[in-house]
Amino acid sequence: MANRIPRTSGEFVQTYSSIRKRTQELCQPLETEDYCAQPIPEVSPPKWHLAHTTWFFETFLLLDRVPNYRVFDERYAALFNSYYNTLGTPYPRPERGALTRPLVREVYEYRNHVDQAMVEMLAKPLSAETVDRTLLGLNHEQQHQELLLMDVKFILGKNPLRPQYREGLSQSECSRVNGLTYSGYEGGVVTVGASPEESGFCFDNETPVHQVFLQPFELADRLTTNGEYLDFIREGGYEKPDLWLADGWNEKCQRGWNAPEYWNKTDGAWTEYTLAGERQLDLSNPVLHVSLYEADAFARWAGGRLATEFEWEHAATCNGCAENDDHNASEFLHPSPALSIQEPSQLIGECWEWTSSSYAPYPGYRPADGALGEYNGKFMANQFVLRGGSCGTPSGHIRSTYRNFFYPHDRWQFSGIRLARSVD
Amino acid sequence: MANRIPRTSGEFVQTYSSIRKRTQELCQPLETEDYCAQPIPEVSPPKWHLAHTTWFFETFLLLDRVPNYRVFDERYAALFNSYYNTLGTPYPRPERGALTRPLVREVYEYRNHVDQAMVEMLAKPLSAETVDRTLLGLNHEQQHQELLLMDVKFILGKNPLRPQYREGLSQSECSRVNGLTYSGYEGGVVTVGASPEESGFCFDNETPVHQVFLQPFELADRLTTNGEYLDFIREGGYEKPDLWLADGWNEKCQRGWNAPEYWNKTDGAWTEYTLAGERQLDLSNPVLHVSLYEADAFARWAGGRLATEFEWEHAATCNGCAENDDHNASEFLHPSPALSIQEPSQLIGECWEWTSSSYAPYPGYRPADGALGEYNGKFMANQFVLRGGSCGTPSGHIRSTYRNFFYPHDRWQFSGIRLARSVD
Amino acid sequence: MANRIPRTSGEFVQTYSSIRKRTQELCQPLETEDYCAQPIPEVSPPKWHLAHTTWFFETFLLLDRVPNYRVFDERYAALFNSYYNTLGTPYPRPERGALTRPLVREVYEYRNHVDQAMVEMLAKPLSAETVDRTLLGLNHEQQHQELLLMDVKFILGKNPLRPQYREGLSQSECSRVNGLTYSGYEGGVVTVGASPEESGFCFDNETPVHQVFLQPFELADRLTTNGEYLDFIREGGYEKPDLWLADGWNEKCQRGWNAPEYWNKTDGAWTEYTLAGERQLDLSNPVLHVSLYEADAFARWAGGRLATEFEWEHAATCNGCAENDDHNASEFLHPSPALSIQEPSQLIGECWEWTSSSYAPYPGYRPADGALGEYNGKFMANQFVLRGGSCGTPSGHIRSTYRNFFYPHDRWQFSGIRLARSVD
Amino acid sequence: MANRIPRTSGEFVQTYSSIRKRTQELCQPLETEDYCAQPIPEVSPPKWHLAHTTWFFETFLLLDRVPNYRVFDERYAALFNSYYNTLGTPYPRPERGALTRPLVREVYEYRNHVDQAMVEMLAKPLSAETVDRTLLGLNHEQQHQELLLMDVKFILGKNPLRPQYREGLSQSECSRVNGLTYSGYEGGVVTVGASPEESGFCFDNETPVHQVFLQPFELADRLTTNGEYLDFIREGGYEKPDLWLADGWNEKCQRGWNAPEYWNKTDGAWTEYTLAGERQLDLSNPVLHVSLYEADAFARWAGGRLATEFEWEHAATCNGCAENDDHNASEFLHPSPALSIQEPSQLIGECWEWTSSSYAPYPGYRPADGALGEYNGKFMANQFVLRGGSCGTPSGHIRSTYRNFFYPHDRWQFSGIRLARSVD
Repeated sequence: MANRIPRTSGEFVQTYSSIRKRTQELCQPLETEDYCAQPIPEVSPPKWHLAHTTWFFETFLLLDRVPNYRVFDERYAALFNSYYNTLGTPYPRPERGALTRPLVREVYEYRNHVDQAMVEMLAKPLSAETVDRTLLGLNHEQQHQELLLMDVKFILGKNPLRPQYREGLSQSECSRVNGLTYSGYEGGVVTVGASPEESGFCFDNETPVHQVFLQPFELADRLTTNGEYLDFIREGGYEKPDLWLADGWNEKCQRGWNAPEYWNKTDGAWTEYTLAGERQLDLSNPVLHVSLYEADAFARWAGGRLATEFEWEHAATCNGCAENDDHNASEFLHPSPALSIQEPSQLIGECWEWTSSSYAPYPGYRPADGALGEYNGKFMANQFVLRGGSCGTPSGHIRSTYRNFFYPHDRWQFSGIRLARSVD
Repeated sequence: MANRIPRTSGEFVQTYSSIRKRTQELCQPLETEDYCAQPIPEVSPPKWHLAHTTWFFETFLLLDRVPNYRVFDERYAALFNSYYNTLGTPYPRPERGALTRPLVREVYEYRNHVDQAMVEMLAKPLSAETVDRTLLGLNHEQQHQELLLMDVKFILGKNPLRPQYREGLSQSECSRVNGLTYSGYEGGVVTVGASPEESGFCFDNETPVHQVFLQPFELADRLTTNGEYLDFIREGGYEKPDLWLADGWNEKCQRGWNAPEYWNKTDGAWTEYTLAGERQLDLSNPVLHVSLYEADAFARWAGGRLATEFEWEHAATCNGCAENDDHNASEFLHPSPALSIQEPSQLIGECWEWTSSSYAPYPGYRPADGALGEYNGKFMANQFVLRGGSCGTPSGHIRSTYRNFFYPHDRWQFSGIRLARSVD
Repeated sequence: MANRIPRTSGEFVQTYSSIRKRTQELCQPLETEDYCAQPIPEVSPPKWHLAHTTWFFETFLLLDRVPNYRVFDERYAALFNSYYNTLGTPYPRPERGALTRPLVREVYEYRNHVDQAMVEMLAKPLSAETVDRTLLGLNHEQQHQELLLMDVKFILGKNPLRPQYREGLSQSECSRVNGLTYSGYEGGVVTVGASPEESGFCFDNETPVHQVFLQPFELADRLTTNGEYLDFIREGGYEKPDLWLADGWNEKCQRGWNAPEYWNKTDGAWTEYTLAGERQLDLSNPVLHVSLYEADAFARWAGGRLATEFEWEHAATCNGCAENDDHNASEFLHPSPALSIQEPSQLIGECWEWTSSSYAPYPGYRPADGALGEYNGKFMANQFVLRGGSCGTPSGHIRSTYRNFFYPHDRWQFSGIRLARSVD
Repeated sequence: MANRIPRTSGEFVQTYSSIRKRTQELCQPLETEDYCAQPIPEVSPPKWHLAHTTWFFETFLLLDRVPNYRVFDERYAALFNSYYNTLGTPYPRPERGALTRPLVREVYEYRNHVDQAMVEMLAKPLSAETVDRTLLGLNHEQQHQELLLMDVKFILGKNPLRPQYREGLSQSECSRVNGLTYSGYEGGVVTVGASPEESGFCFDNETPVHQVFLQPFELADRLTTNGEYLDFIREGGYEKPDLWLADGWNEKCQRGWNAPEYWNKTDGAWTEYTLAGERQLDLSNPVLHVSLYEADAFARWAGGRLATEFEWEHAATCNGCAENDDHNASEFLHPSPALSIQEPSQLIGECWEWTSSSYAPYPGYRPADGALGEYNGKFMANQFVLRGGSCGTPSGHIRSTYRNFFYPHDRWQFSGIRLARSVD
């Protein structure tokens, strides 16, 4: 678990190795060809993820702190820099798919080279900052594990041949879900956010712990289902501008959206591409791969709204989700229908839940000094916060204070909808 | 004053007529040619403003509520609809400048036709909703008075001939302003927002009144000056990506920004176009026409940050700005240097102050039913809130709860910077 | 007539004055507003045409050759330079519509100022080069007379109010035209092109006279009619990619073309906007305002092809069109149906006939030295030649060697179709 | 040799097999990753070329003419259709690089499957049309062999790691070339074009044989060298708009061109990427990878012009290049310096020579019926003809009547410059 701090060198090496190995396991089902494509600028080639996460350790730890470290290839410094302008001009993001070299096997060699040096370093006594950076690197790696799944899904799911990602993915059984119920929360001054002291590890964008004032509100006890979303479509949800944010309506028109990403309609029947392949739309499953604009329009149509990120966090805390939840969605790499219980469910690890909060710094937020200060802070405009983790989030990587963020038009992440309501 | 509710029919007619007349007074210095241009999609031709505000009264009052009203020209329904999709497809915004017809004089005839019918209507007993809509129409007209000044400034200020808007605009005297000081606020649970019951008139986006929790903070006692901003430029503010939001840096690069809008550098000397014409940059004047991105980068460089909209509102309330402030910036149509006093100044009526808050609905916010529900709510994404009114805001139209909003890259509004700081 | 060389000073002054006056007559029906719009980058505001043609005389004659000439406004040098890079950076073309200043009346003052100086100059003995440049300036002015009509038509015809250009435009009577017949030409080595020595005046792109080899061919005796083009539409011409050039099909799809420019379909009936206003489509009239791509697709559908520019020129010469033809289409500012005669008709002055020839230099072509060398030569790529002049071409300005040129997607010029056929 | 018609079944099978095998030999040095990238829309992934050429035989021969042919994968019909709209909607060209599947090995299986069926078919008696289509398919395959080299060069040459295509490529020795001399041609009526009857095989765009009239002209005896082009650069060729076509100047500015494609300047020294890797610029080598715009600007600067395609063809014929020339540039995959002889050299097989002729149908040109009619004809607009074949053209595939064509801004083909002059 990346947010538990290892207590011994041995434990640290083991944590490091297992997380690094996990990334490669995720790539194991891929063919060489699958490693290289970038169908849209947002989707990076899997090969790039493998190299970039390695670059992170090389740049922020080995080059910085290990005296005799021999750099693997100097030209990778620019090639696999994602967006750290302080470190020089990164290779242009939209052109990552053009890089047939280095080869996949060379990237794996790069990983081995860096891993060896990291393991050596971790076996020695470490300064507090080295520990912190290594933990950051591991959590960064886990973020890219999910990005990798998102990107692989896009690469395969948009291919007309619709190959599956791998065999043997479990599939949730179709079942009827209960009608939607809500739980109420009283609001008032509540505490949100995280601190590394208390949480073991957290990203700087979750800090500092602070207080916010909430009005009374209600939160749906489960996620919105495909069936409910289909009703929205059938009742003209994509044709009524008054349901949409103005920018959302423009995006919808320009991009020709008429259903979530990965939904396909053939001969009148809806199917959905999942990492297990194309399959009939399961109406009881949570709706997945919607933009903020669609989530917002659906909520308006349904007579509700999205929750703010603090309402969500408060509810999650009240419901005991503060602890890491070892969700099993990762067996499926797809969310599952809600079990037929009344209390709040599916808060953690099914799909990222769009909130109505735009991504902004918490009061008193301080990014790190130097290049690592570019990790989170500079993205705090024009994006919206999503909460809760998804079926693609690594086990142990999620917590109730975790803030994910995407542009409101993004749909390729594992994003879904939970309704909220104000109480008059 | 548009946000004072007229008490008698006569008063109502007078308020209506004076506000409508004011719009035309603002156009009086224009030549026929100036009425028609749309140099960028955001800038509407002055003629269009004259017609659209008239369309508003015709559509939401006369056609809806006056039985025998004779429509002036049926084709205007689409032509001068700005963005109310519920009422049909508006004429495309970027093509407003292509409309050489109706002629300016025909638009004035349209205004007269509608004004006559409105005055007749207002002289009779009115339902509460008619009163509300009329007040909304008048406040809408005042918003367009400022938009009109913004757009005229762009039309004239981007013309290589640099014509002035009108003669006789007073000019603030150059003076030295004091060094920057801050006032502190304790924070806690504070009340923000407005209600029509208390405020006379307010927009729905200011409602409902609600509570928020603020951390202790400090707010600068005056606006950032041109001189301070020039230091930022000279110290490489436009060349250092680590000072900027990621999206801001991209915009800066793509648009080639290296100074605020309307600044020009000739032979090493900076000038600034104002509605009184091109003039030497006055270092003591507040910096004007910056984007959110520039304001944010400047604040980071200066070791501060922008205030949230609630910090701003709370400070304004504490400093007694809740009342309408009859600012005299309108004599200049340009902000003036801060007088040399220590307490907070320039909060109202100098320039719109960017806040770090993205434009979002207040808890419990309900847009109006029908087409008027499109007035504010659908823009609540991707924009940032600005507070305080400007030299272009009509007298009596501003209040401390007023929320203006623009995209973070917009610069043609009268926007400026006030620094804030967190208190550790 | 601009291509007759005036023999005396008096005649020269008169020619100059009458052509300059004609430009202003064409503007006489315009309202001030109409002078300023630029609905698409290709369409320049009428005010700009008035100023640019004046700039031409000021730049290439007065400033260059009249010692004490006082420049009207130095800033116009860049503002009204169209594309002469040798003379400095022209004001960006797509932003001409943003220029509300100089005012229309100031542009007329500019014209008067320059005309006065020109008339003075012309009254004195002139060098051969001054004569040549003045003739070029007058022919340039006449080209802009047609551009002005094209642009006015676009400005008014795309306005939803569909105002007419002026009252009193004659209208051709609807009549049945004869079925299409062809005339045959033997081909062989023929002479094409013009020389100033023989023609009085010609553009450099018509020179030098040279020989080309033509295969036997046939040319339609009249232009393609609206009725014939409507058949093409009704038989799916806009839906069959195999009829189209690849680039043409892409343009069609991207621009959403389904009929010629200015055709509108309301309640199942086709109308056509003309400078006399919107009117029912006259099936016997020549089809107008088609792109090269549409002309080419129509020809393929009809079992023919477009003529090369030399086939066209040879046929025109054979049919005695070498002389200036005082066409009367200018009464209508619209083409008229072919009279019921068998021999080739409508070759001159109805509409510009697309040829299959791309615009290229003749063998031995030499552009002028200096800035005037940019007049024609640098456009000799990516455009196609049109021949014959149109209803918008000034009387006396056209000849059978005249080469007009537009991009293959352009449709706002008065362009039409004449079929040709190869002879096996 | 693809343009020699095989006389026996055995010969046909052998020709087929050797050409098909050659394509795969060209791919042999590639890594799996290299097969998949599409750095710009014009550049197709090598894998796509392998599949598309196979699709050609499957579609136009096996499916059409072999009764029991079992299709390899029905979904390939759309996936590997390049641009034949008559056969359904092709998969979008700019998204070819997104197709990680089918895998490279699956594409090779596809090739084997089709080759087996083709060889079976070719062993039997064939109709004339089957022979013609097979020959077309083989010549099509050879065209893609060159496209493949072009695309591989772009994929590798734009990679910051600058990998070479393969080891063992010979390199021409640096040597001084002679000063430029010209040969003169008298012109008059000359015969151009090809006929399948005479040439064995030719593309339909080379037909029919016909006569053209040429003015006297001179053609340079060798290609323009890197050294000469460097002089153009050093004398400001890329900074002087008067040397350029208007559209060319715009392209240059927008694309930031300041040298041919693949030239790089490091520490003041020019290098050039070749398929043998990056190397110092050889001044005696022909300049390569220029656009038509650059070729045209260079020619103007040099006081010459480009030849028309008929001048070129006539000169090539006069110099005995009508026959297939077994050029050895393919050993280098790069052109070589001209040998020091005076007569015309380098006409065949060094680099494609831009002509000033836009790509247009010959008089009497008839495309094939059906889908194959889309092979050439629909591209006859907006492109320019290049002549002579290049170092990348397969041996035996070139002839003096061969017309290649690219857009004037294209630079990734092996294109160079030969000067011409008019004779006064």
